[in-house]
Amino acid sequence: MLDSAKLINIVLVETSHPGNIGSAARAMKNMGLSNLNLINPKKFPHGDARALSGNALDLLESAEVHQDIQSAIANSKYVLATSARERSIDWPIVEAREAAIKIKSMVEKGDEISILFGREDRGLTNEELQLANEHLIIPADTDYPVLNLAMSVQLVCYEIHMALKSDQNFSWQDYPEYTHQEIENLIKHFNETAFKLGLIDKSNPKQILTRMERMFRRLHPDKMEGNFLRGFLTKVNKLLK
Amino acid sequence: MLDSAKLINIVLVETSHPGNIGSAARAMKNMGLSNLNLINPKKFPHGDARALSGNALDLLESAEVHQDIQSAIANSKYVLATSARERSIDWPIVEAREAAIKIKSMVEKGDEISILFGREDRGLTNEELQLANEHLIIPADTDYPVLNLAMSVQLVCYEIHMALKSDQNFSWQDYPEYTHQEIENLIKHFNETAFKLGLIDKSNPKQILTRMERMFRRLHPDKMEGNFLRGFLTKVNKLLK
Repeated sequence: MLDSAKLINIVLVETSHPGNIGSAARAMKNMGLSNLNLINPKKFPHGDARALSGNALDLLESAEVHQDIQSAIANSKYVLATSARERSIDWPIVEAREAAIKIKSMVEKGDEISILFGREDRGLTNEELQLANEHLIIPADTDYPVLNLAMSVQLVCYEIHMALKSDQNFSWQDYPEYTHQEIENLIKHFNETAFKLGLIDKSNPKQILTRMERMFRRLHPDKMEGNFLRGFLTKVNKLLK
Repeated sequence: MLDSAKLINIVLVETSHPGNIGSAARAMKNMGLSNLNLINPKKFPHGDARALSGNALDLLESAEVHQDIQSAIANSKYVLATSARERSIDWPIVEAREAAIKIKSMVEKGDEISILFGREDRGLTNEELQLANEHLIIPADTDYPVLNLAMSVQLVCYEIHMALKSDQNFSWQDYPEYTHQEIENLIKHFNETAFKLGLIDKSNPKQILTRMERMFRRLHPDKMEGNFLRGFLTKVNKLLK
């Protein structure tokens, strides 16, 4: 197991079926994760959990049981809540693969992170979803996107394993990534400048602006890149005056 | 479900626990796959299979039951056998992610493919492994790499879904990507403009310019984005004159 993997908390919220806790523990251990946190599990400890945990009994034994999510995630610098796309409140969304890359960069800096998984039948409440920095989506078929809880844990842990084992080194990224708000500000600044430069068709400004917004979000600049672009735009605006 | 997904056969060989068949069916349907093939299942049909299949009962009902693998894979042009790395006989090996990309390219040509999953306790025999073109490995932690059967099905189907949908992802990309030369020209144009705007430290221009180059290469703009940025830079240069 990688040291950085120890900074990753899997948090199961009010799981009904202890078998799912056991399957989730096995899924975690298969992918090199070990920190299992249970918020008000319906039945735990339980024989079904042990029966399905395979060789991951140690994870069940070391699992932390909490009464509320807040105490489980208190030390986390980045909290993800798994969510079905259609149920999601208006919140930043990342797909599992992208989330795993982010998690890798966080834990390699020594930051603790948590991933919340909701109840089998109802997922997480809106209040619980709002505890998260971002919502994690597992891409699935639109006809039947409802995954079993332990399967969701398996897929997320797999993506984390794939990211952690990848040789891709993000150490070149010596500056932190722009925050969501910083990207918003950059997009606004760019779009206003493009307007002043007469580059936007005023009868239909939406189309190109949406494309530029998408482009900047895809770029996800780091602080030095983003600040350089902001400086560039500031200079252009001075010329325009 | 994508049409090409119909060309993908999931083949479970001598599964002991019918619950695993049900979980596998749900895992498949969650990821948009539908062709379930069972080779000599110990117990099928069975209540446990139905109980765990969620809304994928239709997959159980349409599942083909065969007496031998050969008849199940007769029409497949590419056969993958899932295998634990250490048990693998000397055969070409692909990881799940890479396999999914290969599968995508096969089915998009109209070729049928099959993926074999072995028994819960013993996997596939060497004879069965030798029926495959390649062996598929799911990356896992070396301390405990033994995945539950349905979890393996889930992960492989997920990778296939991710690969197949990557196509759809590109449907927003209605413009071709900038060529290498076009990106070169964009970077040159941007850097020259930044120079004229007085944003580059002349004693050490390399550092920031290298960073901007890396940023634009990472962005890899499409033709419309790239051309808009070029137009933006042209306007700024006009202001500078």
